[in-house]
Amino acid sequence: MSHQIAVIEGDGIGQEVIPAAVEVLESLDLGLEFVAGDAGDAVEAETGEALPQETYDLAAESDATLFGAAGETAADVILPLREAVDSFVNIRPARAYPGVDAVRPETDLVFLRENTEGVYSGHEDDLSDDMSTLTRVVTTAASEKLAEFACEYVDGEGFSVVHKANVMRKTDGRFRDAVVRVADEHGVDTDEVLMDAFATRVCLDPTQFDTIVCPNLAGDVLSDLAAGLVGGLGLLPSANIGDDNALFEPVHGTAPDIAGEGVANPLATVLSAAMLLDHLSYSEESERVETAVETVLAEGPRTADLGGDANTEAVTQAVINEL
Amino acid sequence: MSHQIAVIEGDGIGQEVIPAAVEVLESLDLGLEFVAGDAGDAVEAETGEALPQETYDLAAESDATLFGAAGETAADVILPLREAVDSFVNIRPARAYPGVDAVRPETDLVFLRENTEGVYSGHEDDLSDDMSTLTRVVTTAASEKLAEFACEYVDGEGFSVVHKANVMRKTDGRFRDAVVRVADEHGVDTDEVLMDAFATRVCLDPTQFDTIVCPNLAGDVLSDLAAGLVGGLGLLPSANIGDDNALFEPVHGTAPDIAGEGVANPLATVLSAAMLLDHLSYSEESERVETAVETVLAEGPRTADLGGDANTEAVTQAVINEL
Ligand SMILES: CC(C)[C@H](C(=O)O)[C@@H](O)C(=O)O
Ligand SMILES: CC(C)[C@H](C(=O)O)[C@@H](O)C(=O)O
Repeated sequence: MSHQIAVIEGDGIGQEVIPAAVEVLESLDLGLEFVAGDAGDAVEAETGEALPQETYDLAAESDATLFGAAGETAADVILPLREAVDSFVNIRPARAYPGVDAVRPETDLVFLRENTEGVYSGHEDDLSDDMSTLTRVVTTAASEKLAEFACEYVDGEGFSVVHKANVMRKTDGRFRDAVVRVADEHGVDTDEVLMDAFATRVCLDPTQFDTIVCPNLAGDVLSDLAAGLVGGLGLLPSANIGDDNALFEPVHGTAPDIAGEGVANPLATVLSAAMLLDHLSYSEESERVETAVETVLAEGPRTADLGGDANTEAVTQAVINEL
Repeated sequence: MSHQIAVIEGDGIGQEVIPAAVEVLESLDLGLEFVAGDAGDAVEAETGEALPQETYDLAAESDATLFGAAGETAADVILPLREAVDSFVNIRPARAYPGVDAVRPETDLVFLRENTEGVYSGHEDDLSDDMSTLTRVVTTAASEKLAEFACEYVDGEGFSVVHKANVMRKTDGRFRDAVVRVADEHGVDTDEVLMDAFATRVCLDPTQFDTIVCPNLAGDVLSDLAAGLVGGLGLLPSANIGDDNALFEPVHGTAPDIAGEGVANPLATVLSAAMLLDHLSYSEESERVETAVETVLAEGPRTADLGGDANTEAVTQAVINEL
């Protein structure tokens, strides 16, 4: 069975790292079919829409989507795209690689971020000239769905539930209760950590944690914190998983300072492509790509962000040679 | 003019570090009048209320309040107390001290956290069996008030405005616009950073930032992140400032593992007392206390959390001897 992969480069280095990841995928000869879609600042400037309906539909209809990055329009592109693929969880591994400068080289975490609600539900109002409100939504259904996924994901291990239920008692209380209840039903161990305490503790000793299950904004901020601990966003992949559908993207942005020069680090996107392979049940190929990236990080050419002087193409070829 | 200081020890090591800080204050012979109030888990167990009305009133009527920590009832104690003193800003310095183990020894930050609204406004509802909502409130008035304070606080320097206005467009958009407008009016430079990007960047290089102005929950989480970078909560003071009134507290909690042993580190509370002195215009005394703490940290006895074996009393006396 051939899979259709939507490929949305977006802006800036998205246009360099996505082709690199596609090259890696193509070198595996899996007969994947790539279909390009447009989104981002440039598209908005041209058409008035950062995410044209046909790109939304393409993501919704494809088996998986690979997305690069968008500039000023990032939120207008990525939030609807996550919705297009009906994604209920955002998987964000944050792992330090040997030989790559990291504040905390022992970091090896995976965030499972709720991906549909919380403050992202989008209900905001200007109540008066002086006041705006945002309605933060938490449902038992979304919390349970995330928890079911988490229980399967950790495969016999436990996970940490990170929340702020001491202040957001009803909403994060509902989240926490639902997640812990589902975990209990599956015999999965959980420990609870308040999100502020988590921020302190993960800096002091990231090895205290493995898998972290949390609401949407907590996952956004705390996974970016973990990115800081592993040395930056340059190597962080992510996956947005839906029932029939998924979207994979590097955590980094468009890097306007280096865009167009062909020197962007493609590895976060290549690792996102590895997550895509795993999602489509090409588990063996997924592991081969990951191992190839590790080998290149340990021995191969490096882009400038990792202290090397190789360009995007050289690093991409090095990965392909290791496959 | 003599000042009345409300003294609320709370639970756990609050009962050890607050007396230590009071000893330091008394040694200065300023004629401060200390009045004790009760709050916390033990009070709740006894009376059914974590924060008795008379303690609330005491804080509201005193010139300043020194608070230790509360256990399970922390939110029920500290959130109303912040309201009792009409506090619109929570000042949280996070600074690494020479000789104290820190992930990022070059960290020297001050968070000015909005202290009245955001997700802390407390409007939560269970809309159905499946759904809860929380109404996040942002007003121009509170944002401007914080910004006015920030402009004075930075005394000619600039500050960073940290927010998530790309997602919370109306609420954090209102916050950002109000803060930037007030700063512009005062000729104060600002730069804007998204809160997730801030979490990454502060780990990679905390010297990029100095003073950070942000909404309530952002300040909670990001200042705790900074606490992780400076080696933990043990040395972090904080101030909740109102127009006529203020409350000072260490950022740490009740430390149940060591409570009752007389070995808690009193320095976060002593530094909070120094902030109290400054607030009451005893600036010279405030600086003397800070300098004494620095000297003790560099040369003097240390509690176990800093790798020493001195007890609370020995460290407190060492500070007093340096005054
Ligand atoms: C661009 C923005 C809307 C997005 C988010 O907040 O989810 C980004 O920060 C991310 O984490 O992918
Ligand atoms: C105890 C809790 C309500 C409080 C807060 O969230 O403000 C604490 O974390 C703090 O930062 O002082």
